[in-house]
Amino acid sequence: MEITFTPIGTIHSPFHDPAGMPIQPAGCLGVQGWIDLLPDYQACLKDLDQFSHIYALYHFHKSGGWSAEVVPFMDSNPRGLFSTRAPRRPNPIGLSVLKLEGISGCRLEVSNVDILDGTPLLDLKPYVPQFDMVENLKIGWLQDKADVVKTQVSDRRFIDDQQVK
Amino acid sequence: MEITFTPIGTIHSPFHDPAGMPIQPAGCLGVQGWIDLLPDYQACLKDLDQFSHIYALYHFHKSGGWSAEVVPFMDSNPRGLFSTRAPRRPNPIGLSVLKLEGISGCRLEVSNVDILDGTPLLDLKPYVPQFDMVENLKIGWLQDKADVVKTQVSDRRFIDDQQVK
Repeated sequence: MEITFTPIGTIHSPFHDPAGMPIQPAGCLGVQGWIDLLPDYQACLKDLDQFSHIYALYHFHKSGGWSAEVVPFMDSNPRGLFSTRAPRRPNPIGLSVLKLEGISGCRLEVSNVDILDGTPLLDLKPYVPQFDMVENLKIGWLQDKADVVKTQVSDRRFIDDQQVK
Repeated sequence: MEITFTPIGTIHSPFHDPAGMPIQPAGCLGVQGWIDLLPDYQACLKDLDQFSHIYALYHFHKSGGWSAEVVPFMDSNPRGLFSTRAPRRPNPIGLSVLKLEGISGCRLEVSNVDILDGTPLLDLKPYVPQFDMVENLKIGWLQDKADVVKTQVSDRRFIDDQQVK
């Protein structure tokens, strides 16, 4: 069964090359970008300007194929793909929490952007952590690395074909 | 431009009818379900059992069409679609934070499930709030309603065709 989606807009950022990008929003606090939504969807934006943060769901359009294991940027061990946010996924959908700076017409000004310029947008949702009710959080192999994310940048490992399979 | 995805598994829950479901994970603390991943992707699960919570991305397969505005379950006013998590989206992708209770083979036991039984799974990601670095959070029209989510259940408004456009 196939499921077909259509981009609803385009995400813009200072990052034109996947190599050298910050690897998570926490690594790019303050990095500015913008989203140009297609005019068909402008009316969907009503009320969104009351929110400080939004989820952006997008297509990792530069990711070719998928790998069951990847060596994440923050680690030297191969990790199961679903325990990472690496782009080489069976369905290459990216998820970022962005700070919403303002909305003007079809343009959303955003910051904390860890996304490649030109990325196709699939969906926007309000970020409401109250909905997620997380207790007793454990973050596995990332426990000792949560601070590293702020300074680590990416390389070409998820673009080229030399991936761990 | 079309983007085609293929389900990687199926989400199971006690909810066989969209009417009467809890409307967010916070409203279904402890509700048990499971995910049957297709065997092709079993190797992607390595290391995931170290995490207490995961993001599930899935296809709102019972959602027909989209609406620029919807009346959310928690409100009596029409709200812009992107300021809600309602299923009637241009690209009907759902996002839930699930508690991961255990993994056995291709089966993931999960709880806090606010998802319809039989929902096609698109992706799994580790839930690592440290990556999202949210400061000065504002949640707009949901500010006074964040507690209501725990008890409110859904009705048929996003299934039938009587939607606010």
